[in-house]
Amino acid sequence: MSLKRRRKQAADRAKTAGLDALLVTHLPDVRWLCGFTGSNAALVLLCGAGARGRVVLFTDRRYTTQTKAEAAGTQVVIAPQVVKAACEWMAAARVKRCGFDDGNTSVAALQQMRAAVPSAVRRKMFEPVGSLVAGLRWVKDADEIAKMRAAAALGCRLFDGILYTMQAGMTEVAVAAEMEYAARIAGAEAMSFPTIVASGERSALPHGQASRAKLPKRGFVTLDFGVVLDGYCSDMTRTVHMGPARPGERDAYDAVLEAQEAGVAAVRAGVAAGDVDEAARSVLRKAGLADWFTHSTGHGVGLEIHEGPRLAAKQTQALKAGMVVTIEPGIYMPGRFGVRIEDTVLVTAKGGEILTPSTKAWIEL
Amino acid sequence: MSLKRRRKQAADRAKTAGLDALLVTHLPDVRWLCGFTGSNAALVLLCGAGARGRVVLFTDRRYTTQTKAEAAGTQVVIAPQVVKAACEWMAAARVKRCGFDDGNTSVAALQQMRAAVPSAVRRKMFEPVGSLVAGLRWVKDADEIAKMRAAAALGCRLFDGILYTMQAGMTEVAVAAEMEYAARIAGAEAMSFPTIVASGERSALPHGQASRAKLPKRGFVTLDFGVVLDGYCSDMTRTVHMGPARPGERDAYDAVLEAQEAGVAAVRAGVAAGDVDEAARSVLRKAGLADWFTHSTGHGVGLEIHEGPRLAAKQTQALKAGMVVTIEPGIYMPGRFGVRIEDTVLVTAKGGEILTPSTKAWIEL
Repeated sequence: MSLKRRRKQAADRAKTAGLDALLVTHLPDVRWLCGFTGSNAALVLLCGAGARGRVVLFTDRRYTTQTKAEAAGTQVVIAPQVVKAACEWMAAARVKRCGFDDGNTSVAALQQMRAAVPSAVRRKMFEPVGSLVAGLRWVKDADEIAKMRAAAALGCRLFDGILYTMQAGMTEVAVAAEMEYAARIAGAEAMSFPTIVASGERSALPHGQASRAKLPKRGFVTLDFGVVLDGYCSDMTRTVHMGPARPGERDAYDAVLEAQEAGVAAVRAGVAAGDVDEAARSVLRKAGLADWFTHSTGHGVGLEIHEGPRLAAKQTQALKAGMVVTIEPGIYMPGRFGVRIEDTVLVTAKGGEILTPSTKAWIEL
Repeated sequence: MSLKRRRKQAADRAKTAGLDALLVTHLPDVRWLCGFTGSNAALVLLCGAGARGRVVLFTDRRYTTQTKAEAAGTQVVIAPQVVKAACEWMAAARVKRCGFDDGNTSVAALQQMRAAVPSAVRRKMFEPVGSLVAGLRWVKDADEIAKMRAAAALGCRLFDGILYTMQAGMTEVAVAAEMEYAARIAGAEAMSFPTIVASGERSALPHGQASRAKLPKRGFVTLDFGVVLDGYCSDMTRTVHMGPARPGERDAYDAVLEAQEAGVAAVRAGVAAGDVDEAARSVLRKAGLADWFTHSTGHGVGLEIHEGPRLAAKQTQALKAGMVVTIEPGIYMPGRFGVRIEDTVLVTAKGGEILTPSTKAWIEL
C-alpha cells in the first residue's frame, strides 16, 4: 500500500469520526504515514474536503537532512517544540476538531496542546480517538508482509545458528551476544526487545532476560528474541534442553507444544482472538497445567513488538487477513523450570501461515 | 543511599506538596524506589504520618518470582491491571490526595485511575506533580556513581577496542555489531540507545544510526554509543577520521574539541546549566560555526539515557554535586561532514570529573 493510500484510509476514518485533522505523535504511526524514522516528530493529517490525506511533518533541526531522505514529498516544518508548532499550525489553518491518541499522549502534553491554540477553540478542539492509526496498522499490506517475512526468516537463522554454539557453562548473556552479533551482521537495526535467555530454574521466569548465569549441564534454556529489520519486528521463542530430560520435563514440553500447535491451527480470518487463546489454553487445562500458563496466548506484531490484536481470554475481536500475531503459550513452575514455544503467524482466509518455521521438535544439546 | 532513604526523600517531598501518596508508574522511578526491573508495574508510596515511605508494588503474574528476588521486603500485589489495582488499593486505604507524573501518564491512564476510585473522591484525588521522583534521581548517590563509573569505563573499552577493527569498506552496522558484541560479553544488559555509526557524509546526521553504508577510505566516522550495566547508562561520542583530512576537516574537529573542553571546564556544582551550554557554544560562535551546532550541549544520564538537567541555552537550573551529565557539542554540515565529541561528566564541588577518559586527540585510521 502506498503512503498515500494509508493516509487516505486514516483520514477517512477520522472524517467519519467528525474530525478535521489528526495529530499523530506516536512514532510508529508517524513512520507508517510518512516514512520518517526520527525520534522526535508530530504529524498533522488533514481530513477535511479538498485536503483529505494531506500531511505536514514537524520535527527539530537535528533531522533536517534526514527528513529529505525519508519523507521526500512531505511538507516539513522544523521547530524546537514539535507538538506546540503542530497545534499552532492547525489553529492557523482553522482546524476545529483534532483527534489525538489518548493512550500515547501524556496529560502534560495535552496541556501543552491546549495552551498552543486560542482560548476560543481550546476546550473543544482536541478529541481522544485512541489508537485510530495504530488500529489500521494491525492489518499489514503486501509490502509490510514481505518485510515481516524477512525479519522472521532472520530470526530463524539466529536460532538455527545458536544451536551450534550453545554449551553448558556458557553464560546466558554470551548466548545473547552471539545471536545479537549475527543479527547485526545480517543487517538488523536492533533487537526488537531485550533478548531472553533463561536457563535452568530461570526458565520459570517468563521474562528472564539474559543474565550472567551459566547454562546448566542439565535443564531447559528458553530463547525468546526478535530482530528489527527495515523497521519491522520479528518475535519467536524456542525452548531447548541441555542434557537428558528429568522426569516430567519432556511431558511438560510436549503439552506446551501441543497447545502451541492447537493455537496456530485455530488461526484464520474471522475467528475471534479469544477463541485462539482458548484453543491453546484448553490443551494445557486438559493436561492439568493451566495454572502455570500465566499470560495470554499472543499479540499482534509489526512496526512495534507489541501491537493489537490481543490474543487473550474472552477477546471478541475477529482476526483479519493480513494481521500478524504471535502464538506463544508457556508454563512456568517456580523453583523447577519453564517452557515456552512461540511462532509469528500471518492470518489468512485459509488459516495461519507460520513465518518462523524453525523446528519445534524436542532438542537435547 | 538505601532504598529506604530514597523513599523517605520522595515521601517528604510529596508530603510537602500536600499529598498522602504518590502513584509511581514510570519504570525507572519504580526501580529506583524498590529495585524491581519488570516491564509492568505501579508503585504506591505513602507519605502520611505513621506510614511515610512505605511502598506497595503492583505487578502481574509474569513477575511473581522476579519480585521475590528483586524487591525482597516490599509488599507485592499481583493483579492483571496494575494501575487499576493500585488506585483501588489507595481508595480502600483512604488516600485522599495522590500525586502522579503527568509527563509520563497518558490521558487514557488518568481516565482509568479516576474510574477505579469512588466518585466522591474522584475529582480531587489525583494531582499532577510532574517528575517529582525523576527529579530526585538527577543527583546520584555513591552507589549509583560507582555503577555509572563502571558503565562509562566499559564504554571506553569498547571505543579503544574498535579502533583496532575499523577499516575502510567495513559497514557501519558491522562496526556497531563488534562494539555491541564486546559490550554483551562484558556483561552489558543492553546498549543504552541505538548505536550511532555515521560515516562520510552521513556524519552530518546528528542521529545517524549505523546503516549498511561502508566506511569510506577518506572521511569522518562518528561513533555515539552507550551500554547499560547494572541498570545504569553510559553515553559517549568520538569522531575519528579514515585516511588523511581534507581541507577544513581538521579545523572543524579542533573547534569542536575546544568547545567540548570548554564545556567540561565550565561544569561545577552551583553553575547554571545554561552557562555550561554557553561555554561550549561561544567557542563555536567565535569560530563562525555556531549555525551548524543544532542541538543543546548535553543532558543528565542515569537509569535513563536522557534525564535532567538539560544543558541548553538559557537554562537557569543550577548543577548539583552528584549529577552526571553529558557534554556533547557537534557541528553538522549537510553534504559535507559532521563532528561530535561527547563525555559523560560527574558534577562535583570542585568541577567536572570526566567518566569517559578515552582519548579525544585527532585519530586517523
